[in-house]
Amino acid sequence: MDFKTDFIPLTVQPQEIEAYSFNIITEELGPHPFTEEQYPVVQRVIHASADFDLGLSMVFHRDAVRAGIEAIRAGKNVYADVQMIQSGISKPRIEKFGGDVRVYISDADVAAEAKQHNLTRAIIATRKAVAEQPDGIFVIGNAPTALLELIRLIKIGEARPSLVIGMPVGFVSAAESKDELAKLIDGDVPFITNIGRKGGSPVSVAAMNAISLMAERG
Amino acid sequence: MDFKTDFIPLTVQPQEIEAYSFNIITEELGPHPFTEEQYPVVQRVIHASADFDLGLSMVFHRDAVRAGIEAIRAGKNVYADVQMIQSGISKPRIEKFGGDVRVYISDADVAAEAKQHNLTRAIIATRKAVAEQPDGIFVIGNAPTALLELIRLIKIGEARPSLVIGMPVGFVSAAESKDELAKLIDGDVPFITNIGRKGGSPVSVAAMNAISLMAERG
Repeated sequence: MDFKTDFIPLTVQPQEIEAYSFNIITEELGPHPFTEEQYPVVQRVIHASADFDLGLSMVFHRDAVRAGIEAIRAGKNVYADVQMIQSGISKPRIEKFGGDVRVYISDADVAAEAKQHNLTRAIIATRKAVAEQPDGIFVIGNAPTALLELIRLIKIGEARPSLVIGMPVGFVSAAESKDELAKLIDGDVPFITNIGRKGGSPVSVAAMNAISLMAERG
Repeated sequence: MDFKTDFIPLTVQPQEIEAYSFNIITEELGPHPFTEEQYPVVQRVIHASADFDLGLSMVFHRDAVRAGIEAIRAGKNVYADVQMIQSGISKPRIEKFGGDVRVYISDADVAAEAKQHNLTRAIIATRKAVAEQPDGIFVIGNAPTALLELIRLIKIGEARPSLVIGMPVGFVSAAESKDELAKLIDGDVPFITNIGRKGGSPVSVAAMNAISLMAERG
């Protein structure tokens, strides 16, 4: 079946298309620096972005994938910085283990507190999530201030995430916030991030979904 | 204020960060082939992706921006192919003119009909949207089959979208579906698309939001 010249036959199942895409990715990517455990995450990020450079810019804390799998199985909540991430994450695979996918950036109390303190809503939403579950899973794909605040809370000992997926996109502070996260490489907080401006909701979702798939499959 | 070395001062407003990002984009992009009307759309797509190549790969039908603005003001609905796009689109700017942002891919009747006919849910959801409002605004950032079906319905005269934003991402049929859309360049259906594999929900949302901002600002 030649997908490239004949389009998708309408009856092809999404799983087949995904498998076919994954083969293309592996073939075109060639040799890479990722472990067997990390590669499915990278592969899914490339699948979501069609961007090999972005995939190759990824940085994994040594415990990231294993810790993420264990956190999902332990029923930890997943805290997203924006609605688009909450929409994209495969919720059944989180919920079946008892976890919930939550986002607080649009909450009225968050908006009010942000206004009162003249801070971004992303910062206040991060504090609310950390207060609720300091060892939750945090997925940040948009707001550098959310990631910077989470790093600050980690450093002062208030947050101890089971996993941080921090891949905000953008021109102001996104790359810098990820550099700060990458500096925690010798610490004991598991994280997944990438170097540079690129990133965003779909790739953060892709990384999360890759790990929840591993949690489910065992 | 040196954002690049000092991080975001926590009190900076999102609007200021956005304006600062837009300046960086314009400066780094340099000369480009887009009209004054198209450029804000390209700028916002680059802002959402941090990807200049993606921005430069965009293709506009001659009427796309103007027609999009008029459709929003006329209260046309916006039909998205996936939830992530519905989540990302600024709904108040659509709703204030009487339109609604809708997505049908997860509807039970769509799933049932897809199974019955052995077609993708994206195809059936596209048909449902077109049946409801043949001249709606269609935003497709994920499913090539949704875009291919919409093109088919345009060709047989069943759909006459006010605007198609078609920017699915991926390795199987995404680029081909966008090539098919780009072939309609001399037709009378306004569209925005891009060449190649890259694309996705956030850039589709960015294009839509750029146009709804113009509709609001006049």
